[in-house]
Amino acid sequence: MGRTSDARERLIQSGMELLHSGGYARAGVREICARAGVQKGSFYHFFATKGDLGLAVLERYHSHAHAVLDQALTPELSPAARIERLFQLSSEIQQQFRQEVGVMPGCPFGNLVLEMSTCDEGFRLFLARVLREIMERLEGAIRTAEPESDGQQTKHRAEAIFALLEGAILIAKAENDPSIIQRMGIMAKRLVSTRDA
Amino acid sequence: MGRTSDARERLIQSGMELLHSGGYARAGVREICARAGVQKGSFYHFFATKGDLGLAVLERYHSHAHAVLDQALTPELSPAARIERLFQLSSEIQQQFRQEVGVMPGCPFGNLVLEMSTCDEGFRLFLARVLREIMERLEGAIRTAEPESDGQQTKHRAEAIFALLEGAILIAKAENDPSIIQRMGIMAKRLVSTRDA
Repeated sequence: MGRTSDARERLIQSGMELLHSGGYARAGVREICARAGVQKGSFYHFFATKGDLGLAVLERYHSHAHAVLDQALTPELSPAARIERLFQLSSEIQQQFRQEVGVMPGCPFGNLVLEMSTCDEGFRLFLARVLREIMERLEGAIRTAEPESDGQQTKHRAEAIFALLEGAILIAKAENDPSIIQRMGIMAKRLVSTRDA
Repeated sequence: MGRTSDARERLIQSGMELLHSGGYARAGVREICARAGVQKGSFYHFFATKGDLGLAVLERYHSHAHAVLDQALTPELSPAARIERLFQLSSEIQQQFRQEVGVMPGCPFGNLVLEMSTCDEGFRLFLARVLREIMERLEGAIRTAEPESDGQQTKHRAEAIFALLEGAILIAKAENDPSIIQRMGIMAKRLVSTRDA
């Protein structure tokens, strides 16, 4: 692996770690470079601005999120069981982070929505698209539970399930207790059509 | 009103506005003072640190939140109607802010939980207490819908309703569309005991 591509990757990793632990405003280019062991001049070789690195970091989290969704929303499980599995996996991921760094970082998208939406329209639009994509995947995963329902109803259920997940992660982060997310999975099943729960 | 108490109040108002629009890390003491029309030296007469102003701002939001809960969780309404009313009021408040400043600020507690919990243990504990208090009020408001249920079940329902509210505000903020919160109120009713919904 060439040094150049390696440096870009280290910057992204460093950005992911800092973003996760302290938010976007706190993560300075200087600190990102120091953590990555990359000169500040090289940073601007790879990214025109801190915002560009931010978007590269978001793309990476985006892939991770879809990998988790792939694991949870499998055809072998019933729609309600898929939702419960998603909450369980989210709880386990946060638990693992908490063991590593002592605190629960929460959802990178949720964190950035609340931090950035009012200050950066580009970030807000990117995040809104990511969130909408996740909700569409959830919609597909619960649709078989209510084949005769109109699409609008299923869409609103999927929105509510995702809202419950983000809210559960938020409360769990405040209490630094990832088990709350798993507990909420049982409640989330109530939002899937009763025909299936 | 004396100039002194007036300056303290202006600093709190200025802190509330900046916190709401750009988060804690972005709101510098210099900017808070400039917005309040108060000398930086005077700031430290009232608050030992920026964190102390932050806590005063949170106390103020705390009172506002309980005033909204008082309005929604009234004895005249059924438990499910109280919950729906809370989502409706939250939607209206965000709508009003969006009209005034163009963007939806979201919930000040949710914003700070996601921004601060990993970096400031004092803030995290304060916020966890505020959130728990709100969940206890919700628990009281839905308990009459399930008199024979054990307390644990009602507690978990109240947690889920609050998670749904925070998640709804988060998604609405990403899409800059407060009507999402109101729509989720209908879903929130499903989390109140089915005996009542």
